[in-house]
Amino acid sequence: MFTSHYVRRVEWGDCDPAQIVYNPRYFAFFDTATGLLFEAAGWRKPDLLTAFDIVGLPVVDIKATFLAPCTFGDEVTITSRVTACRRSSFDVAHQLRRGDLLCVEGTETRVWTIKDPDNPGRLKSAPLPAEVIARLEADGPAA
Amino acid sequence: MFTSHYVRRVEWGDCDPAQIVYNPRYFAFFDTATGLLFEAAGWRKPDLLTAFDIVGLPVVDIKATFLAPCTFGDEVTITSRVTACRRSSFDVAHQLRRGDLLCVEGTETRVWTIKDPDNPGRLKSAPLPAEVIARLEADGPAA
Amino acid sequence: MFTSHYVRRVEWGDCDPAQIVYNPRYFAFFDTATGLLFEAAGWRKPDLLTAFDIVGLPVVDIKATFLAPCTFGDEVTITSRVTACRRSSFDVAHQLRRGDLLCVEGTETRVWTIKDPDNPGRLKSAPLPAEVIARLEADGPAA
Amino acid sequence: MFTSHYVRRVEWGDCDPAQIVYNPRYFAFFDTATGLLFEAAGWRKPDLLTAFDIVGLPVVDIKATFLAPCTFGDEVTITSRVTACRRSSFDVAHQLRRGDLLCVEGTETRVWTIKDPDNPGRLKSAPLPAEVIARLEADGPAA
Repeated sequence: MFTSHYVRRVEWGDCDPAQIVYNPRYFAFFDTATGLLFEAAGWRKPDLLTAFDIVGLPVVDIKATFLAPCTFGDEVTITSRVTACRRSSFDVAHQLRRGDLLCVEGTETRVWTIKDPDNPGRLKSAPLPAEVIARLEADGPAA
Repeated sequence: MFTSHYVRRVEWGDCDPAQIVYNPRYFAFFDTATGLLFEAAGWRKPDLLTAFDIVGLPVVDIKATFLAPCTFGDEVTITSRVTACRRSSFDVAHQLRRGDLLCVEGTETRVWTIKDPDNPGRLKSAPLPAEVIARLEADGPAA
Repeated sequence: MFTSHYVRRVEWGDCDPAQIVYNPRYFAFFDTATGLLFEAAGWRKPDLLTAFDIVGLPVVDIKATFLAPCTFGDEVTITSRVTACRRSSFDVAHQLRRGDLLCVEGTETRVWTIKDPDNPGRLKSAPLPAEVIARLEADGPAA
Repeated sequence: MFTSHYVRRVEWGDCDPAQIVYNPRYFAFFDTATGLLFEAAGWRKPDLLTAFDIVGLPVVDIKATFLAPCTFGDEVTITSRVTACRRSSFDVAHQLRRGDLLCVEGTETRVWTIKDPDNPGRLKSAPLPAEVIARLEADGPAA
């Protein structure tokens, strides 16, 4: 399955008064990581929305385990891997490491989402295009 | 077990370009909800840190299911309930509702955390004080 | 001119490793305060967008002075007052107090913004409706 | 004076329901940019705090003008330049560009801040070390 890597610096503003990353920020990191996975697969996020007329890829299920804390100045690498593709949803597993140390593991399920043509202002799921499934199920770029 | 309620308005800045709440924001809501649960139990967060000389209550495990989207202007109620108390950690279950509609369910495990006296700059878990366990295990304020 | 008040608790997640509010969060507070000013004037933000077919009220100029730090657990009151209404923009002055202590002063200029009918995907300014100007120039609800 | 450059991608989560960057996020970008300016000058932020026993560099004055909107997927470059060094504070001017287009200009004043030895829990300003002033007043790394 497709795999991508995202390197980022933990910022001062990512951290809380205990001087460690505020847990919601890890979910923002994961969100960006999934966006970059699609970019590595061929579509920058704005192009993905335009090309397939979707409004986004909202998460419907997410979980994370925090194994070791990170703090500002740390450089971390998030490895993101597609682990399942279904009719209108897919799973991505993220592993965030500082050097060799695994600090956070997360898994998310996202839905291919369009505007509901029958209910203005509402969203609905739609089938993943075959072209997208083919890319997500392919082996990703070199590790 | 102790239960508390937190009412908040979803803000413009909580939402993403799909015009729904950006998922990391729900974890910030949950973090605040747990802080308010402790406040309802007797300790505002700054007092909790001072009274027991802890650095915080970092999350080690968290998961959430997003059942229905929320958007800016929505008023939501988060009901937070302690579901387990262990030696140095505890679980809180959150349910976020818009009116009667259950929109998000989440569960988190948090650790009672102090500065490690043997390793400057490091954190370590510590036993929950009996007084805190007693409050968390009591039935909360009125539903 | 119209004036409104917004009381909020400073949250753990609003604060940085120095244990004071991370300055970008004050701008989120101000953004919410301006949204609530419009709500007090008669339009919740989602209704404002629908009623006048605008995409939002982006800020074009903003400044703030930080006089005293705030931290988690503080209850603060933001008083927001319209200070000028022009053809397609208006100014709001915010004062954030903790008790009687003035902690932050800010001023922002916002633009009444629509989708540009001639350039899909672009935004443009538009004249403030007379009805909106009338409300913003009226004296607000009780201090 | 010292000058540094910071390239970042605008993320989905930086943007609001109008599909443009939510203005508080620009102040987070500037905060990171100033951190990277110090890193380019010789001190990563965690090292800066340790080396000089400061708690941080809180902003006391900030202003910004938003000239053109940015959206998710945009790559932006922030050029940050020290414009003044005083006894215990300094100014940084930021210019954020998308390609050649100047999108945001900002200026901030920050204070060299320590724990007040006479008032536990309070912060106070302190003189900038000569070594720091010398670096900030030097011409920065190559443009």
